[in-house]
Amino acid sequence: MTDEDDPQTAKASLTWYDSRANQPHRSAEFRLYYTTDFIQEHAQAGDMLFVATREGGSVLVIVAVAGSTTESQLLHLFGVAVDEGRVTKKLIAGADDIVLNAATTYILDNLGIASVVSPTETESIRDMLSREFNLIMPTTKVFSDFVRRYLGKEVSPLDDPDAALMKYWQTETLFFKTIEKVGIEQWLSEGNKTAEDFLKFSLSIHQTRKSRAGDAFENHVEALFQMHDVYYSRQPITEHNNKPDFIFPSINAYHDATFPVDTLTMLAMKTTAKDRWRQALAEAERINKKHLATLEPSISVKQTTQMQARNLTLVVPTEIKATYKPEQHSALMTLTEFIQLVKERQKSEFFTPNLIPIPAVPKKAAISKPRKK
Amino acid sequence: MTDEDDPQTAKASLTWYDSRANQPHRSAEFRLYYTTDFIQEHAQAGDMLFVATREGGSVLVIVAVAGSTTESQLLHLFGVAVDEGRVTKKLIAGADDIVLNAATTYILDNLGIASVVSPTETESIRDMLSREFNLIMPTTKVFSDFVRRYLGKEVSPLDDPDAALMKYWQTETLFFKTIEKVGIEQWLSEGNKTAEDFLKFSLSIHQTRKSRAGDAFENHVEALFQMHDVYYSRQPITEHNNKPDFIFPSINAYHDATFPVDTLTMLAMKTTAKDRWRQALAEAERINKKHLATLEPSISVKQTTQMQARNLTLVVPTEIKATYKPEQHSALMTLTEFIQLVKERQKSEFFTPNLIPIPAVPKKAAISKPRKK
Repeated sequence: MTDEDDPQTAKASLTWYDSRANQPHRSAEFRLYYTTDFIQEHAQAGDMLFVATREGGSVLVIVAVAGSTTESQLLHLFGVAVDEGRVTKKLIAGADDIVLNAATTYILDNLGIASVVSPTETESIRDMLSREFNLIMPTTKVFSDFVRRYLGKEVSPLDDPDAALMKYWQTETLFFKTIEKVGIEQWLSEGNKTAEDFLKFSLSIHQTRKSRAGDAFENHVEALFQMHDVYYSRQPITEHNNKPDFIFPSINAYHDATFPVDTLTMLAMKTTAKDRWRQALAEAERINKKHLATLEPSISVKQTTQMQARNLTLVVPTEIKATYKPEQHSALMTLTEFIQLVKERQKSEFFTPNLIPIPAVPKKAAISKPRKK
Repeated sequence: MTDEDDPQTAKASLTWYDSRANQPHRSAEFRLYYTTDFIQEHAQAGDMLFVATREGGSVLVIVAVAGSTTESQLLHLFGVAVDEGRVTKKLIAGADDIVLNAATTYILDNLGIASVVSPTETESIRDMLSREFNLIMPTTKVFSDFVRRYLGKEVSPLDDPDAALMKYWQTETLFFKTIEKVGIEQWLSEGNKTAEDFLKFSLSIHQTRKSRAGDAFENHVEALFQMHDVYYSRQPITEHNNKPDFIFPSINAYHDATFPVDTLTMLAMKTTAKDRWRQALAEAERINKKHLATLEPSISVKQTTQMQARNLTLVVPTEIKATYKPEQHSALMTLTEFIQLVKERQKSEFFTPNLIPIPAVPKKAAISKPRKK
């Protein structure tokens, strides 16, 4: 696996055997034999090899490019550290041996290894979503608003926007997967499907997953900005028809040549950033030091170093920040810190009333209708 | 649709009606009513709207961001030109009304609208692949080699590498889809599948599609370099563990500080380039003017202008070049022209015998075993 491409996969038979089993006077020499050229074609010296035995006897072999984000995410997922040149072994027998939090769930989802949702939890959520939405997927905006009302006082968005964002995000993901599952089960039960039907339907399922994840992330972050009285323009046009996700304090301030550059802020948003962060660099020419909000855990040191060299600071929730190494923390900012930064900057004397943005939605709309569960 | 994200989709009901149908004294006022907020949430003034009625009565509505590659690809696909502020109508009733070539097939595949393969053609290919591979997918390398031998003298890789590449590519894609279809039909026929089974299996299908497309593209281009006696290093390490796809004439020359920079060439390869071309810019610090080979048709003027500003030249087969506008041609090069360029450069007096690359595969291996069909 590299950071730039989707995982490449192949099926093969594996044999783990002692090549000297018939030579009792010699010590054992174990060999791993596999029936594919796939690994030789793609792996290089220095890459990280993960060999995981699974329930049912199959074996999952993952090769991650040395120094890649994928490598550091897998090390984080399995809770192991690199021991130069040596083999590390870890037993993961039950649910207690691997921590299923936002970061590890993210990694499992992106590996294509579905994360487990407890069936009892799913059932009560399914009933609730059946009452609320008849198990039909609402638009992301409606869904995100509903999730924030549903959680209500379980979260403290004003005291801890980082924790609130993670809770909003995880809850919307869970609700989304619950309705998605109903749609897939419906499709499967219809029968008489062709390969072409399968390709079309499954492509739309995976595209919807990705695009809704991005929309939900943006919706919740925007709602938090509103709750914190942050001024911003969402998806304004800067130049060359480029549209960054957010400009602070407003796009009018950005286009006002007398407005000081060091009081302007740009925030790009990408749920997955490892292969796409460079896109953010071209989005607002006036702003040299840019910010990128992401939910991606354990981005490699190599990539955060490149980001710093390009004056890009990552904005990540506290829980995701914990998956990064201490030496990377200078390249990172929590959402709380980012909100403090833009609130400080919007106090600028240059931010005159005529530059105040006209919000696309009424301020506070996102938290205006508390609703009983 | 934007260039950076997967298409975002929603289902809704559409009604096209005359709002003055009951007012006979007034002229008709037609309105298009739809039951979703999705379009208002995502579209902006200036975006391109495509409304296509399909067999069976459903309507496909596509909104493409103004100036995007997606917009210019859709205009190319439907064979229409922008008529500022006006509506263009075109009847596509049968297979003759839309040209299904490499470019339009590429666009349809990436839209998630499966392109049509004629059933008779599929059947004879299926028989052949059954004899050759028992309908089990070989590794990309084996498959690509087989495709080139299979085509044999139908193509003239020495006289016209551009046409040969397109033929190799299209043939491998057709063979791949034929075996893929067998696997999907097998899975569908097994029955008793859960939503989780569906998600895992379909994700691996779509990931395999993408990764094999990239591998096949690289394999065939590499084989053409070998046939043309071009020296290169494939996926060498330049610096910071970066691995461009090709360095010419060799990675040793690249690392030799006395070797003149203007005689070095870097080629990155991406089947889809619209959202990922910036990744290539960081891959070889010594080389200022970089090249990127792609099969992506009709990249927008906005993006080719940005590429030129970053000293990136696109390398595309002649057939794909034809989908670009004349004013973009200075940002493009055909494969034939690229091969001429690197062959000219490898004549450099500085390219001494000790700098000649050690090929990973024996030269000419790719065309060494002609085989009867």
